[in-house]
Amino acid sequence: MTANSVSIGILGATGYTGVELLRLLHDHPQARVVGMTAERHAGQPIEAIFPHLAGRGLPTLTKVGDFDLGALDVVFGCLPHGTTQDVIRQMPRGPKVIDLSADFRLRDPALYERTYGQPHRAIARQADAVYGLTELARDAIRATDLVANPGCYPTTAQLPLSPLLEAGLIELDPIVIDAKSGVSGAGRAAKEASLHAEVSEGLHAYGVGTHRHTPEIEQGLSEAAGRPVAVTFTPHLVPMNRGILATIYVHLRPGAQPADLQAELERRYRDEPFVRVLRFQSLPATRHVRGSNLCLIAVHPGRLPGRAILLAVIDNLVKGASGQALQNMNLMLGLPETTGLDQAPLFP
Amino acid sequence: MTANSVSIGILGATGYTGVELLRLLHDHPQARVVGMTAERHAGQPIEAIFPHLAGRGLPTLTKVGDFDLGALDVVFGCLPHGTTQDVIRQMPRGPKVIDLSADFRLRDPALYERTYGQPHRAIARQADAVYGLTELARDAIRATDLVANPGCYPTTAQLPLSPLLEAGLIELDPIVIDAKSGVSGAGRAAKEASLHAEVSEGLHAYGVGTHRHTPEIEQGLSEAAGRPVAVTFTPHLVPMNRGILATIYVHLRPGAQPADLQAELERRYRDEPFVRVLRFQSLPATRHVRGSNLCLIAVHPGRLPGRAILLAVIDNLVKGASGQALQNMNLMLGLPETTGLDQAPLFP
Amino acid sequence: MTANSVSIGILGATGYTGVELLRLLHDHPQARVVGMTAERHAGQPIEAIFPHLAGRGLPTLTKVGDFDLGALDVVFGCLPHGTTQDVIRQMPRGPKVIDLSADFRLRDPALYERTYGQPHRAIARQADAVYGLTELARDAIRATDLVANPGCYPTTAQLPLSPLLEAGLIELDPIVIDAKSGVSGAGRAAKEASLHAEVSEGLHAYGVGTHRHTPEIEQGLSEAAGRPVAVTFTPHLVPMNRGILATIYVHLRPGAQPADLQAELERRYRDEPFVRVLRFQSLPATRHVRGSNLCLIAVHPGRLPGRAILLAVIDNLVKGASGQALQNMNLMLGLPETTGLDQAPLFP
Amino acid sequence: MTANSVSIGILGATGYTGVELLRLLHDHPQARVVGMTAERHAGQPIEAIFPHLAGRGLPTLTKVGDFDLGALDVVFGCLPHGTTQDVIRQMPRGPKVIDLSADFRLRDPALYERTYGQPHRAIARQADAVYGLTELARDAIRATDLVANPGCYPTTAQLPLSPLLEAGLIELDPIVIDAKSGVSGAGRAAKEASLHAEVSEGLHAYGVGTHRHTPEIEQGLSEAAGRPVAVTFTPHLVPMNRGILATIYVHLRPGAQPADLQAELERRYRDEPFVRVLRFQSLPATRHVRGSNLCLIAVHPGRLPGRAILLAVIDNLVKGASGQALQNMNLMLGLPETTGLDQAPLFP
Repeated sequence: MTANSVSIGILGATGYTGVELLRLLHDHPQARVVGMTAERHAGQPIEAIFPHLAGRGLPTLTKVGDFDLGALDVVFGCLPHGTTQDVIRQMPRGPKVIDLSADFRLRDPALYERTYGQPHRAIARQADAVYGLTELARDAIRATDLVANPGCYPTTAQLPLSPLLEAGLIELDPIVIDAKSGVSGAGRAAKEASLHAEVSEGLHAYGVGTHRHTPEIEQGLSEAAGRPVAVTFTPHLVPMNRGILATIYVHLRPGAQPADLQAELERRYRDEPFVRVLRFQSLPATRHVRGSNLCLIAVHPGRLPGRAILLAVIDNLVKGASGQALQNMNLMLGLPETTGLDQAPLFP
Repeated sequence: MTANSVSIGILGATGYTGVELLRLLHDHPQARVVGMTAERHAGQPIEAIFPHLAGRGLPTLTKVGDFDLGALDVVFGCLPHGTTQDVIRQMPRGPKVIDLSADFRLRDPALYERTYGQPHRAIARQADAVYGLTELARDAIRATDLVANPGCYPTTAQLPLSPLLEAGLIELDPIVIDAKSGVSGAGRAAKEASLHAEVSEGLHAYGVGTHRHTPEIEQGLSEAAGRPVAVTFTPHLVPMNRGILATIYVHLRPGAQPADLQAELERRYRDEPFVRVLRFQSLPATRHVRGSNLCLIAVHPGRLPGRAILLAVIDNLVKGASGQALQNMNLMLGLPETTGLDQAPLFP
Repeated sequence: MTANSVSIGILGATGYTGVELLRLLHDHPQARVVGMTAERHAGQPIEAIFPHLAGRGLPTLTKVGDFDLGALDVVFGCLPHGTTQDVIRQMPRGPKVIDLSADFRLRDPALYERTYGQPHRAIARQADAVYGLTELARDAIRATDLVANPGCYPTTAQLPLSPLLEAGLIELDPIVIDAKSGVSGAGRAAKEASLHAEVSEGLHAYGVGTHRHTPEIEQGLSEAAGRPVAVTFTPHLVPMNRGILATIYVHLRPGAQPADLQAELERRYRDEPFVRVLRFQSLPATRHVRGSNLCLIAVHPGRLPGRAILLAVIDNLVKGASGQALQNMNLMLGLPETTGLDQAPLFP
Repeated sequence: MTANSVSIGILGATGYTGVELLRLLHDHPQARVVGMTAERHAGQPIEAIFPHLAGRGLPTLTKVGDFDLGALDVVFGCLPHGTTQDVIRQMPRGPKVIDLSADFRLRDPALYERTYGQPHRAIARQADAVYGLTELARDAIRATDLVANPGCYPTTAQLPLSPLLEAGLIELDPIVIDAKSGVSGAGRAAKEASLHAEVSEGLHAYGVGTHRHTPEIEQGLSEAAGRPVAVTFTPHLVPMNRGILATIYVHLRPGAQPADLQAELERRYRDEPFVRVLRFQSLPATRHVRGSNLCLIAVHPGRLPGRAILLAVIDNLVKGASGQALQNMNLMLGLPETTGLDQAPLFP
């Protein structure tokens, strides 16, 4: 495609996923952002809120409805869950839609309602939606016009676990996913709990046994296993801006060895540009992926026989959100999947 | 006892545990620090290295051997493991000794050698040493003159787990201890891996399946259970200075409920000044204990039946090191256990 | 006085200055907190908002008006500026009042109105108010029942500058105060600009030439100089929770040398428990005063003749707010000034 | 030029400036890194030290002398000052050399010796060296084969000040430069003072009146003014990894207004791709330039007539080091100056 030939709209451009999408699209030669919405900031230039985006030739912020979504090639939904579905339900078909909210991730509307506390209002579109964990669903993503972009925790959990469940190398239970996230995952809403003075120099778990990403993780793992999988998932808030580390405790199926897990993951991800299986017993760090679309995975033998520990790290705003969204856009448009996503990690 | 009547020596006063001990002893009316060693800094005043300790009337730093350890009431060992045992072996009996290194924690010298890669050189003293997790070993601590002060991770793990194993409420396997620590736990050695630019804005696991605190944890839990217990223990380095959070995944014994765990921990710690069992399903944060000798514990039901999740937080430099050491000193001297340890947490 | 004999009320107990006051009062043997207000949280125990204050025997939060302020010995005002004056205006005389807001700091009501954008509504009480920079106004503080507790920046600026202006050692112009503050100084209000993801890993100046603390600084310096003093004051927001560092650039009066500044400050603060003049050319750090009521001051010669640079550090929540408030309370009640304020700094 | 046609060697590739150069060169289509030295790590792949650089096709680390520097197109010197000059002195002429150390920045060898405490050992090459503050010295940079890449503080100070001195809008004295830097500026050496537990949650000034960047700043400003300029320069260490903010206090020449400064800077930098003069009285933040080669400048009127305050921010590792080095390389090779330097800032 020619330069700037893909016209793009972003719904909710002033949250952290929106603004990260703008950073990445800046490096994408075909992308041209023609509309960006932000209800509270409509009428303002983006640099009034994010000075680091000055001089990028971005359009003025508008309200949803101020430009014709139907005329675009691609629409990214960066709105909070519960609001995207209304916009998408009313949108004309045509544009490729990639929704970063949770609205279209759960296939079962009843499960959506139980998990998010409200009935789904776009059930017709839900039926078409493809869960866009790119490496695990390329064919379906290519074929759809509505991708439900995965959550950050579910991405970190499924990339190491799904191939192992598919290959029958690990037991379906127990699977313990102990995940740690930087604070940008909580979004840009002004909440006391996200203040610097509350977050820095401290650590806590939250949503223990109840976090909304659990059904999403289980949906993916069950599909991989071909049978219902239930997991123990505990998220933690870490005093850093970006990054997720999942430490995953599994039991091996009889006969399987930790080295088999290593081999299977290497085989599965050998040709992937963004998923890297590190050498056996490596120690991936979130700082090794900061600002990049990479996922690093390591396998460790347990101290007890028949156990293994998986480590996976991503940047929650890139592979866990906007980067994967762009990766999906590339796939949906037939562009090389890495276009605009080749940034080297920023360290230190 | 009268003011300043307890004469104290600190071996290795310029590491983080030494300097934290000085902070706490400042609030202890009976304590009088009469000797402090620091081989590299001998001859200097402590404020040359730690300006925040100026004006406290502390003695000049010396080398080990420059003052008579035998004449002291109490000696705190804040040296790296492997060096304390030589000093203590050669010391005359008399002073109460509280060693914060790992040298006297493992009862089995063969296990010590396997774990720390060198033969134990003070096996005679090892036989007398009491493992000083205060709340679990008061009588023995009162009766000894050599306390092996527990490690920071083992303290965080044993306080919630030991009573439950003793009461037979949880299975001996699997026990998964996913622990997260601030960077002061790595000590004050000048290492690239501890630089601000390497640590901040990032997260990683380390010592997966191999950390030296694992045998120490298992020794304590096995004693509580009355049978050998083996655990999965994974430490992580978090970009903050102080604090440890342990997220512990357990399976319930048949018939036991999460509420039984809550009740047993409440019963066990009801009268403890420093261990607090929070309301069922609470979310303790390391920032709630920063600078204090507290341990906060919470019990959560698992999402799956028959499981539970325990959360425990301490300040690694206080209850995980110098605070517990002082608590043990109080106990050994017959002083009220909370003397010098009543600081309220510093937040924010 | 006997233990717990001073009855205390705190207006606005759930902001950072309120909660810091509670930490300090915990170490004060005479203090007994009998009332704490927090409009939004009335009816809740303080540990519902600040778990680290659990178990301290503190009263339930109420609304202003729910207890009799007139019956108390001491009232601390920790409300935002503009709201305290209404409460204090309507209060019966009797209790000692220490107001941590800006409401009573500026002697000239017209200047208050220009600076804070609203007319002063308690001008009668303003006339009695004493500006409570303890070391500079002890006699007046002892004699009043209303102390206007100084701002954090003005405290850091005046402690080094006022004695030098009084002694005629420095020129009245130019005086450049480049100040850097941790984020707790912005309070606990939920604002996007105070989010961890906005504040950490970055730095900026704000209020350049317009910050409201400027008239307060100038009022104090003018009084010290005996003539109007106008200063250049630039505050900056630093990604840390606590601490202020002021770097102050002055020109020497003809004949004066940097060593004269050092000598004058040493003379002036020789017997002060909380203000320490470090050796000539020292480098004080905010981490050396964290959690303590200390102010450290250092004098440096300029690179150019006739110039000097002053450095001063405090913990903005202690000497810059709640600690100085408690120091003032002690003075007003005739208690030893250091009561409850002898905490050693927390480092690391 | 064709892809990968510029052969590049990096001396000292494992310090923070070396590793940042590798990040930027990854985005440069013509660049091909063919040699990287690191004495301590010779024989290792770069990903053994920096896992985030895995998979980039970089050569194995070697010692200086293990490959033929003379055959390269470009050599970047990322060694500590005092060591580069020996390598460069012995190098055959031919390659373009860009030295990021301080070795060739000061034109006067006597001043070098006074400042760095050792005689200059490559005085012949010093004579050819061009001080590479790109925006101020393009013609000379294009014409030389040895660029002395400016220090991070001097870059931040000279970009706003030099045009104003040249235009005669500000007085030569006093000029106060109060600068604040992230900790990556201290390099990757393992020092206690750079440990996370020492740096985070704190702030201090250092090198007050004596920092080695002062003569470098004065050399540039004197050249701009056409007369000797002496400045007051105070650096501070801020608990963040990247970024420098300089707050600069100047007096206006008679008749000049703050708006004239704004106009002159706008005029001077109108067409610059990396230097942006923000609207009058803006508040640039280091987080707005993180990871980018940008310099943002703002002008504020002083509170006192005849004064102004300049704010300038850069990323110390990009425009303050490796980015400017790459910018200079582009210029020396006749490539578009922005090649490889178009990264959008990473926020949050």
